[in-house]
Amino acid sequence: MRIDLRETAELLKNSDNILLLSHAHPDGDTLGSATALAHGLSAMGKKVKVDCGDPIPKDFSFMFEGLVNEDFEPELIAAIDVADIKLLGKEYEGRYGGNIELCIDHHGSNMLYADKVYLEADSASTAEMIYLLLKEMNAEITPVMASCLFTGVSTDTGCFRFSNTTVRTFEIAAELARRGADTYNIIQVFFETKTKTFAALERLALETMRLYCSDKCALMCVTQDMYKRSGSDESEVDRLSNLPRQIEGVLVGVTMRELKDGSFKASVRTHGDIDASEICRRLGGGGHMGAAGCTLYGTKQQAVNSLLKEIQAEIDAFTID
Amino acid sequence: MRIDLRETAELLKNSDNILLLSHAHPDGDTLGSATALAHGLSAMGKKVKVDCGDPIPKDFSFMFEGLVNEDFEPELIAAIDVADIKLLGKEYEGRYGGNIELCIDHHGSNMLYADKVYLEADSASTAEMIYLLLKEMNAEITPVMASCLFTGVSTDTGCFRFSNTTVRTFEIAAELARRGADTYNIIQVFFETKTKTFAALERLALETMRLYCSDKCALMCVTQDMYKRSGSDESEVDRLSNLPRQIEGVLVGVTMRELKDGSFKASVRTHGDIDASEICRRLGGGGHMGAAGCTLYGTKQQAVNSLLKEIQAEIDAFTID
Repeated sequence: MRIDLRETAELLKNSDNILLLSHAHPDGDTLGSATALAHGLSAMGKKVKVDCGDPIPKDFSFMFEGLVNEDFEPELIAAIDVADIKLLGKEYEGRYGGNIELCIDHHGSNMLYADKVYLEADSASTAEMIYLLLKEMNAEITPVMASCLFTGVSTDTGCFRFSNTTVRTFEIAAELARRGADTYNIIQVFFETKTKTFAALERLALETMRLYCSDKCALMCVTQDMYKRSGSDESEVDRLSNLPRQIEGVLVGVTMRELKDGSFKASVRTHGDIDASEICRRLGGGGHMGAAGCTLYGTKQQAVNSLLKEIQAEIDAFTID
Repeated sequence: MRIDLRETAELLKNSDNILLLSHAHPDGDTLGSATALAHGLSAMGKKVKVDCGDPIPKDFSFMFEGLVNEDFEPELIAAIDVADIKLLGKEYEGRYGGNIELCIDHHGSNMLYADKVYLEADSASTAEMIYLLLKEMNAEITPVMASCLFTGVSTDTGCFRFSNTTVRTFEIAAELARRGADTYNIIQVFFETKTKTFAALERLALETMRLYCSDKCALMCVTQDMYKRSGSDESEVDRLSNLPRQIEGVLVGVTMRELKDGSFKASVRTHGDIDASEICRRLGGGGHMGAAGCTLYGTKQQAVNSLLKEIQAEIDAFTID
């Protein structure tokens, strides 16, 4: 059942022991949203815990400061920014799968697995929705909550650069800055800092960038060998995904990465009317209009060929030469 | 004489034929500020012209749409975002040098060459000041004016990433988005687009990145040969300057570029208390706390050695190992 902002606020207000779940491979939005909500609910006197199937990367640990980490029997289990129950990770899916009463999310692809779903597919981040929810509940937005939410707002919009950024995004960012979000340091950590190993990986990946489809597609590939040579690993590779699309004239940017089993995961980023999710859907994947992904099997050349075929078809459908 | 917001508004209101000057090598802030003000004054029935000693790059031409480009005898000449009369360029300095009645600027280094100076050194951009000035004059902010100002606000803050970004910056950005600024396309053009030649130059430059001073300094070097190999030139090289500082743990990032005469221009970017302008001052250059430059002679190795000596001294002065 789909519910709205007010109903979501009511449901949370009427519950006392609340478990908030973030998705596995946690990012700034799932953790920033869950922790900001936890701080707010906690200040209302409720028992709250944020949990995640994977360890919390150290850059996000500030979000948990001041939250009491005690175990309790949850009366309400809510998944935050989790589009699919599978994204909780195998263990947590097994543990909580059938018991998710509420889901708060902004992914249009949400599988509606929860009893009640507050979904706003036009929202650039779940953090924007949580900000409005906290206001609806008359929660005070403290500086740490503002920082949690600003992390979600900024990371899910590529620091206001992605096409999902709206007037509301800027308004909420301004409001969070006013409430004491540590905007400068958050942006430095998530956008202006590269580990040495990531910088080395980036250099190796950029060397593989090639143009296809009359220079409308740029593609680069990260191999397992590059992880070895750079000292980097898959945890850092997501940050490369936007680079191919930045080339002038490129409508489709692709970052392929070789997985340990020899298959390839492709991250597809598009401009304008070119639908990344359509390209990936035809290859067994999915995602958003401007950002989607899929997994490809066979040799690297076979994977590239499959991708280029669908990319060319999508470009042909939307551009006039 | 320093004047304030209200006095600046009065001065402009009481003038009918106004010439607004941008600095040479024009950027988003000097042009966005001058054109937004021109649109606003023009709507009040005044004759206004924006002029610049250098040609207007095509990415800024949208700012001039709707402005009448007629010649007239100016009653008031105002320099916008021009810290030093020399920055008008030789020809315009000669033509207007002694006649600048008003200067509106945010550079702490402003030479106070104008009769009246409205200077706000804490403002991240002159565009923020122009926004407040237009509001003070009760001017309606049209979508094109909002786009002009958003260009200034975003380009002078590195798209909200530099330490000059304040709560007011986010608030004004939100207000401009609300007034119809084309935020997405502005950010795409100025931050998310690389020419193919620039992408090739970036790749060559990144290959030269090395760490020094116990990994607290990262340095890379662009040679004349790299311009030839990439097809790029000096017009694009400025965009590389922030890259070395992004490496985790690096306090001083340096981009050296070989000039045609064989000398080297160094762009120095620092974090925290490390003063880039002090490093460059000792080598005959200057600039801001976080961003400065100087020119070095001799071989490349001699240039690197001179830089590293001053960088190490500055690091030693401000860090405890």
